[in-house]
Order: sequence, then C-alpha cells, then structure tokens
Amino acid sequence: MAQPHPASTNTPRYLTGDQAGLREFLDKFDVFLFDCDGVLWSGDHCFPGTVETLELLRKNGKQVVFVTNNSTKSRADYRKKLEGLGIPSSVEEIFSSSYSSSIYISRILQLPENKRKVYVIGESGIEQELRSENVPFIGGTDPAYRRDVQPEDYKRIAAGDTSLLDPEVGVVLVGLDFHLNYLKLALAYHYVKRGAIFLATNIDSTLPNSGTLFPGAGSMSAPLIMMLGQDPVALGKPSQAMMDAIEGKFKFDRSRACMVGDRANTDIRFGLEGNLGGTLGVLTGVSSKEDFVSGPVRPLAYLDKLSDLLAAEQ
Amino acid sequence: MAQPHPASTNTPRYLTGDQAGLREFLDKFDVFLFDCDGVLWSGDHCFPGTVETLELLRKNGKQVVFVTNNSTKSRADYRKKLEGLGIPSSVEEIFSSSYSSSIYISRILQLPENKRKVYVIGESGIEQELRSENVPFIGGTDPAYRRDVQPEDYKRIAAGDTSLLDPEVGVVLVGLDFHLNYLKLALAYHYVKRGAIFLATNIDSTLPNSGTLFPGAGSMSAPLIMMLGQDPVALGKPSQAMMDAIEGKFKFDRSRACMVGDRANTDIRFGLEGNLGGTLGVLTGVSSKEDFVSGPVRPLAYLDKLSDLLAAEQ
Repeated sequence: MAQPHPASTNTPRYLTGDQAGLREFLDKFDVFLFDCDGVLWSGDHCFPGTVETLELLRKNGKQVVFVTNNSTKSRADYRKKLEGLGIPSSVEEIFSSSYSSSIYISRILQLPENKRKVYVIGESGIEQELRSENVPFIGGTDPAYRRDVQPEDYKRIAAGDTSLLDPEVGVVLVGLDFHLNYLKLALAYHYVKRGAIFLATNIDSTLPNSGTLFPGAGSMSAPLIMMLGQDPVALGKPSQAMMDAIEGKFKFDRSRACMVGDRANTDIRFGLEGNLGGTLGVLTGVSSKEDFVSGPVRPLAYLDKLSDLLAAEQ
Repeated sequence: MAQPHPASTNTPRYLTGDQAGLREFLDKFDVFLFDCDGVLWSGDHCFPGTVETLELLRKNGKQVVFVTNNSTKSRADYRKKLEGLGIPSSVEEIFSSSYSSSIYISRILQLPENKRKVYVIGESGIEQELRSENVPFIGGTDPAYRRDVQPEDYKRIAAGDTSLLDPEVGVVLVGLDFHLNYLKLALAYHYVKRGAIFLATNIDSTLPNSGTLFPGAGSMSAPLIMMLGQDPVALGKPSQAMMDAIEGKFKFDRSRACMVGDRANTDIRFGLEGNLGGTLGVLTGVSSKEDFVSGPVRPLAYLDKLSDLLAAEQ
C-alpha cells in the first residue's frame, strides 16, 4: 500500500459557513471531480441543493466530472441515471470505470497488432464503452458464453481450440457480471495464462443495493486472483490508472483540480495519491468528522454537506 | 502458516531396494492414508504395481484409506472411479472432502436445533454425503438456484424474505460447483452475514483436467472470502479438520498411522501437522527428490514409486 500523502497529516479546514474561506477555496480550482453516491445523492434520493451547487460551479467556469466505479453502466446509461435523480449533466462530464478501462486499453496500452481483442467478463456498459473507443471484444453479454461448461470444453481449452480461445485476445477485462459462470472464469484464466493482460474495471468487493450489499466487480476477479496468484490492474477508484485516464481525457492541471468525496479511504486517498491540488470531504456519506480530522487519510477541507458551497455567493 | 514440524528437518530415509528397511517401516504402522493422483495413478493411467501393493498392505492387516479433496464425487462415485482404473476398493476405505465436510457438520459442529440446515454451493457428491449423515440441506443441484438474479431478488434478500433466505440455515458449505452463479454467491454471503458458519470442502484454487488447470473449489470460495473478509474452515487436505474427521471415523492411533503422498507441501505437511507416526513420499508426482531431501517439509521416508513397497516381501 502507498504511504499516506504528506498532506494527509494536516488538519483539514472546516468550510461550512465560512464565506471567505469558501470563496478562496473555489478560486483555487478549475476542475472538480465528484464521487457521486454519498456526495450528490444517497441511494435514490438526491440531496437538496445538489443541482444548484453544480450550477454554481459550471456558471463560474469550473469543469465538473462525475467519477463512478459502476462498470455495468455506460456513460450514456449513467447520464440517464443522473437525469432520473433530477441532476442535469452531459455524457462528457461522466467518467465511469468502464470508460476508464476503454481509454486505458485504447490510448495507454500498446497492444501488438494481432493481440488487440479484449475478452470481457461484464455487462453491456463495458461493451458500449469499448465500442466508443473502437476496441474489438468478445465475451461480455454474448449468449454463447452464458452456458454450462461441457465435458468437451476441457479438452478444447487444453488443446487451445481457437473456436473457444481466440488467439487475437491480448487483454482480459473483468467487471461486474450478473451472468458470471464457470466457463467464463475458465476462459479468462486460460487467456491470462497464455499472456493476456489482466485488467479489472474496479475491485470493489461489494455492490450496494436495496440498503444492503451484493457481490461487486472485485468478487468476479477474486477467483482469477486466487488461481493466477496475480492482481489485475484496476481502472476504478482509488487506482491511479483511473486518474491517469481522467487526465488523459480532460488534460487538466492537477494542481488546479479538487476531488470531492465522502470516503477518506477511497475518494480522498484517490485525490491525494493523484497529487491533486485539493481534496474536499463531505459528511453526508460514509466517513465521519473524526475520520476527516484525525484519521490516517485527511482531506484539505471538509463540509457538512456539498450544498454548503452555495454560501460562497450569498 | 503453521511452523514446519520438527521432524521435517530430518533427512528422510530412502527405502527403494532396502528390504530390511521396508519391512521395519511397514511394521511401524497399522493405517496407511493415501493421496491418490500422483501416488496410485496419474490422470487416467494406473501405475503398475498399485493393485498388488494395496493387496500386500491389506493382506498384512493394514487399514488402507484413500484421501481425496475431490468434492464433486461421493464416496460411491469415487469407488467407481477407482474401479474404472482397475483398483479394487470399498466405500469404507474412501475419505473425500465432501464426506469429511458431512462428518464435520454432523459429528463435530454442535448446531442449535433450529439452525441445522446447510446451504450448499456444490454438486451432487456433497449432497449424497450430507444425506448419508442425515444432514438437511438446500441449494446444491436444485434447479431453483440455477437462474439469473432478478431485480426483485435484491429487495427480497435485503428484506430477509424467508422463501429466499431459509431461517434454519446455520452452515454455508462451499465446494466445487460447475453451475456457480451470482444468485448463489449473493445468498451464501447473506447467510454468513446472518450468522451461518462458513465452511469449504477444500480450498484448492485449481482443478486438474485434460493436462491443464481449471477453476477449483477454492475459486468458488474466493468471492465470499473477499466480500466477507473471512476465511472458511476448510475440510480438505492439508486442513487438520480433515485429519480430525478421519480419526473420528477410523478411531486409529496416530502414532501408528502413515500418510503417503507425492506433494511435500500438502500431503506430507498434512501428515506432519497431524502428528502421524510417519509420512512417506513417492517420486511419481509433483515433488522431486530434492524437495523431499532438502526442502522445508520432509517426509520420514521416500520411495521412487509406491510399488517399491512390494520388495518387503520378496
């Protein structure tokens, strides 16, 4: 694990109700990266003032980016989700782990000409984003992979039968897949053993739903990690591969960017390890005031709630 | 990891061709526990002399036990497999991880009256062995669990709907399941979160087939281990829970028992950590002479091949 960022031992500044402090803080940044659940909304409930706060930032020329580890949705799907919560946004403002993965494959990995295909464990969000970057792929939601393993599959896989193991596959990308099965895991394992790069959209072990937890994208990678004795490169928060992908797209000055989040250990760490100019904690999610003020990973500043930013202009 | 057994730093005795040494060795033991693949056979090929060696042991009044981590087969299935390889055996001589798990649940765990059901991830071998010990179970090969997760499942699981989450389940038992899916993992997670004991038939990450490797029973547990942050009690080699179960059944004197295997790190370790009177390595499988003679885990004695034991009576 990386060492805590030096800044993390500072005492964070409490900005709620501090108009001058808020103005000064906003003036320092051109770009605001937002964690979503716990910051802008909770579950299906948009926090009061979220829409107005985002408007204030945009009106002042700030770039707003919504950063999500949700790999099952494409950016277009996610924009619809924001719209459903009453939050206006554009696809260009959204950065999901499926998009991050696609950018990483298409713009950062230098794959040989004959190894450009991606074998996908995951849902349609990943497929849509791979298509948007013109990355060829197999697997994913293809019904041909949603079947039981058959006795002859073992022999075909062992023999390297090219109708089951495509020789052009150079990357295995594992995201959340509600149709995970034995065959998909066996194929992913053999692709990596044959030299494919092992990527994961994100490695969150759980996925919140209906007020409790369900298997997350990391749970899809877990069997492969155990079999291979190898971790994937993860493209979601807090992996810096995601920060690199965001920077690759928006070309911003990191010293003029601020990460906003409710979780010290993931969101704030993500901003600190990315050497962003600032990190802003909010108390409407997982981390407490004590976590931010005296925990091992501390933001530059914190607020009771995101909409406290509105006081900067009152 | 357990400390190496003190005996493991001894120099193992090489017994091939040493008739007096072989006789002396055989006289020390009443019970021989056998790892199978790599000792008695390899893949589908029975080693020459295996049948005769087992006959020699039985003729001299030795108890023979076949110990296997294969959880998909019942003892009856496994006896058929031995028969197919030309090796006579009785069901009573076979000890599989599915049987070990059933014994552990029925005879060692003290489950409350209203928490006696087992939720199974696995195939019919586990079900047959649970039935043989009169342990009630759900899941397993029941087609009702071989389906995609549905949107309403999240709400039903979150609400503790007793038609999906049986309140009498007190144990989750995870073995190799060729029909693993998202719903099965979600249910297993929620049972353990609600207090069920987390068991695994075995935690081998891979399963050999057709000369290569496929996902093993450990790969079924891996997502749950990641989600729960908790390891299961494993009932296969080299877990001592399996040794306890074997002893519980055969009631033998450990000082008069010998474990025979081809792998220092699992088979020989299993015997050493179980404080058996002896361990015997054979060079027809994974470990080399160097592993046995100078590795960190060393048997009491070793042979080129199991059938070298026949020289004791020539």
